[in-house]
Amino acid sequence: MAEIGVDVIEVGSAAASEGERQAIRIISDAGLSAEICTYVRAMKGDIDYAADYGADSVHLVVPVSDLHIEKKMRKTRADICTMAFSAVEYAKERGLIVELSGEDASRADTAFLYDVYAGGLEVGADRLCFCDTVGLLTPERVAEIIPPLCIAPLSIHCHDDLGFALANTMAALRAGATCAHATVNGLGERAGNTPFEELVMSLEVLYGYKTGIRKEQIYQLSSVVSRLTDIPLPTNKAIVGEMAFTHESGIHAHGVLREPSTYEPVRPETIGRRRRILLGKHSGKAAVEAALNEMDYYPDETQLQEILKRVKDLGDRGMRITDADMMAVTEAVMAIECRPVLKMRQFTVVSGSNVIPTASVTLLVRDEEITGAATGTGPVDAAMEALRRSVAAVADIRLEEYHVDAIHGGTDALVDVTVRLSKDGKIITSRGARTDIIMASVEAVIAGMNRLLREEDENRSKNPD
Amino acid sequence: MAEIGVDVIEVGSAAASEGERQAIRIISDAGLSAEICTYVRAMKGDIDYAADYGADSVHLVVPVSDLHIEKKMRKTRADICTMAFSAVEYAKERGLIVELSGEDASRADTAFLYDVYAGGLEVGADRLCFCDTVGLLTPERVAEIIPPLCIAPLSIHCHDDLGFALANTMAALRAGATCAHATVNGLGERAGNTPFEELVMSLEVLYGYKTGIRKEQIYQLSSVVSRLTDIPLPTNKAIVGEMAFTHESGIHAHGVLREPSTYEPVRPETIGRRRRILLGKHSGKAAVEAALNEMDYYPDETQLQEILKRVKDLGDRGMRITDADMMAVTEAVMAIECRPVLKMRQFTVVSGSNVIPTASVTLLVRDEEITGAATGTGPVDAAMEALRRSVAAVADIRLEEYHVDAIHGGTDALVDVTVRLSKDGKIITSRGARTDIIMASVEAVIAGMNRLLREEDENRSKNPD
Repeated sequence: MAEIGVDVIEVGSAAASEGERQAIRIISDAGLSAEICTYVRAMKGDIDYAADYGADSVHLVVPVSDLHIEKKMRKTRADICTMAFSAVEYAKERGLIVELSGEDASRADTAFLYDVYAGGLEVGADRLCFCDTVGLLTPERVAEIIPPLCIAPLSIHCHDDLGFALANTMAALRAGATCAHATVNGLGERAGNTPFEELVMSLEVLYGYKTGIRKEQIYQLSSVVSRLTDIPLPTNKAIVGEMAFTHESGIHAHGVLREPSTYEPVRPETIGRRRRILLGKHSGKAAVEAALNEMDYYPDETQLQEILKRVKDLGDRGMRITDADMMAVTEAVMAIECRPVLKMRQFTVVSGSNVIPTASVTLLVRDEEITGAATGTGPVDAAMEALRRSVAAVADIRLEEYHVDAIHGGTDALVDVTVRLSKDGKIITSRGARTDIIMASVEAVIAGMNRLLREEDENRSKNPD
Repeated sequence: MAEIGVDVIEVGSAAASEGERQAIRIISDAGLSAEICTYVRAMKGDIDYAADYGADSVHLVVPVSDLHIEKKMRKTRADICTMAFSAVEYAKERGLIVELSGEDASRADTAFLYDVYAGGLEVGADRLCFCDTVGLLTPERVAEIIPPLCIAPLSIHCHDDLGFALANTMAALRAGATCAHATVNGLGERAGNTPFEELVMSLEVLYGYKTGIRKEQIYQLSSVVSRLTDIPLPTNKAIVGEMAFTHESGIHAHGVLREPSTYEPVRPETIGRRRRILLGKHSGKAAVEAALNEMDYYPDETQLQEILKRVKDLGDRGMRITDADMMAVTEAVMAIECRPVLKMRQFTVVSGSNVIPTASVTLLVRDEEITGAATGTGPVDAAMEALRRSVAAVADIRLEEYHVDAIHGGTDALVDVTVRLSKDGKIITSRGARTDIIMASVEAVIAGMNRLLREEDENRSKNPD
């Protein structure tokens, strides 16, 4: 985050756990350009932790709505002022930059909120923060409520419970707030906070503001955070979702192949991504042809029409079109003598509570039979390793990435597996879809290996002449 | 959608495929209260399909920006007018309600857009629609651009490429638009369209507008659409995301247990959901105690502190706390003589290309050894069935729901499985987390079965006295 150009990084709450404190220490010692901030309550112990573990600043949060003061804290407004002001003083004594933050500010009496802010500034607070803790603001309300509170640098902290976090954050920045709290991928309690990547891109693209963020690293940052938190990027999420630069409908795909800006407000490369054309029942000729050419098939017009028809039929049957499907359909239509480099003869996997997951696979690689076996951390891992070993004699193909879409419903639901395979620096993506996760994984890898190996074979009968 | 109170349902594009046309026919014949609309281009063939397959109305889309007209269509503004007006006339001849829609309207010359709208109304269009095709609008721009275009009932159709679909839709409704296009779960090309559930709930909660939508069915509708489209609900999505009513941080969980409105802008029951408290390194005492009580453990203060410490330690090690973890920790701390009703002796599964997935399991059920075996559509399915059969003699426990979070990174990534099990009408949720999807599933089911069976056992040593 420091590298991408973020000014302040809130690194957690020191009071939460010892692991969290160690993390604050490590990050504070890392010599980052960003200010390292940590969340504290108005408590001496929390502030000591922040200072002792090396934070530059504290996000010092006090409840300011009567609901929070009375129902959650069982205190009075006067208690809150006493707690807040002495905490600010103490944090300043400990040498910390203080951002005094009103929790549930959007449901607070604004006169009282003003008093808390003004009193906090008097005893040394450096900045203020307005928290819309349960996402109840609207852009219209923000435009009214924020300007009179800008008596010092003010941060805006929004939650997305009703889908307005981004719009409210933007409205606050336009109304005088000087800093926005945002989270990568919009993570956060419940519906999460304002998504960093949407805030940056909408500031730049919609409002013409230069944020100074290295935009080309946005997708990488999102992906790393998704992997480390084990929280998938939502399929349709703006900017970083799996589908954000994917086109399925025939009209959209056709348009974008002629001129990207017709259906892309932002070039995918700007944020470090690539465009993807997906095939299904909404696909048109242009998209199918583009996909086939990428796979090195060059059907004529009649063949293309027939392939399109069969792809739509598969789509109508609710199928997701995988690479293997496309290859099967195309080779059938083009009457290509189907000679995959690699054929699976058998595949077996054993797993269990007292069994080390073990897989064996027998492949026919250019007419030579090769059997490989491997163990793994689970049956899929064992299967992938057995496959890798079996083709190792022919080529060094590696599994760079393994992804399974979330599985819903029952144990007989369709499992959609995507793999990224590499060979000599070339990377391809391949998919498999079955009700059996292991077979779906094997299918995806074998289809991908075939594509990688076929491209090096000279006597391909499908070569365009 | 008709049942929940939606006025107009757009049921697809008749030109896309034969399956799509059959779907339009089935939906049109279903006698729903909603108007059935279908997407058409300004083409006679598309309009014929709409009429022939029984739609009430057409969403007749013509590109109106010069970019789309010239780059995508390779036509002129005059061509577009000719196409649009004759299509409107033809659709009216065919007895259809016509919503004339300007594609990429947000990048169009507004004077030209006005001419297209006015001309369309003159030849019989019933309604107009403004499409922000690539999500480039801002609420400020909407407030300026929409009012002069409200020369007939106007729909607003927004895309979420920069995260502003909902805010722009709301701004348009406030500026005079009379209808909003929205999609369940915000599905749609790329980043998707305005999410139906966020639009309804923000209209009701933030703007005090009665939508007439049966809100208590919102979550069910979302879940059904997610299952049928096989597109998971985003973890942090507003209203319908997995985490939208989940509280992890100690402060939030503590507050919500005292008074829900402190951290919930909407009661989860309003939309047919339930609150969830999640345990991890941010958990506080209140949340851990609530979870333990739900599992029928009643530790004293000292025990509770020790359990909390161990839960935080697990959280610090990056673990997700499963039910099995909680039970293990609690029983160790409370020195409960651990006598699970059900213990696994062995579990084995075989799967492969030429093998019917087959699982066997040996359980010790109240000291009696039972072995069961089953086949399934995949190894997980076989395992679940073997488990069900093994306990069938003791109790009729059914797997009501099986969910796996998306798997990222590699084949050795942690797999998180959630199951819902039922016994005599009682339903519980149980989780398992392992690098091996089959073992994670087995772990989740056995932990859940133990909870269901233990509750009926009379001689539990952990009973509070």
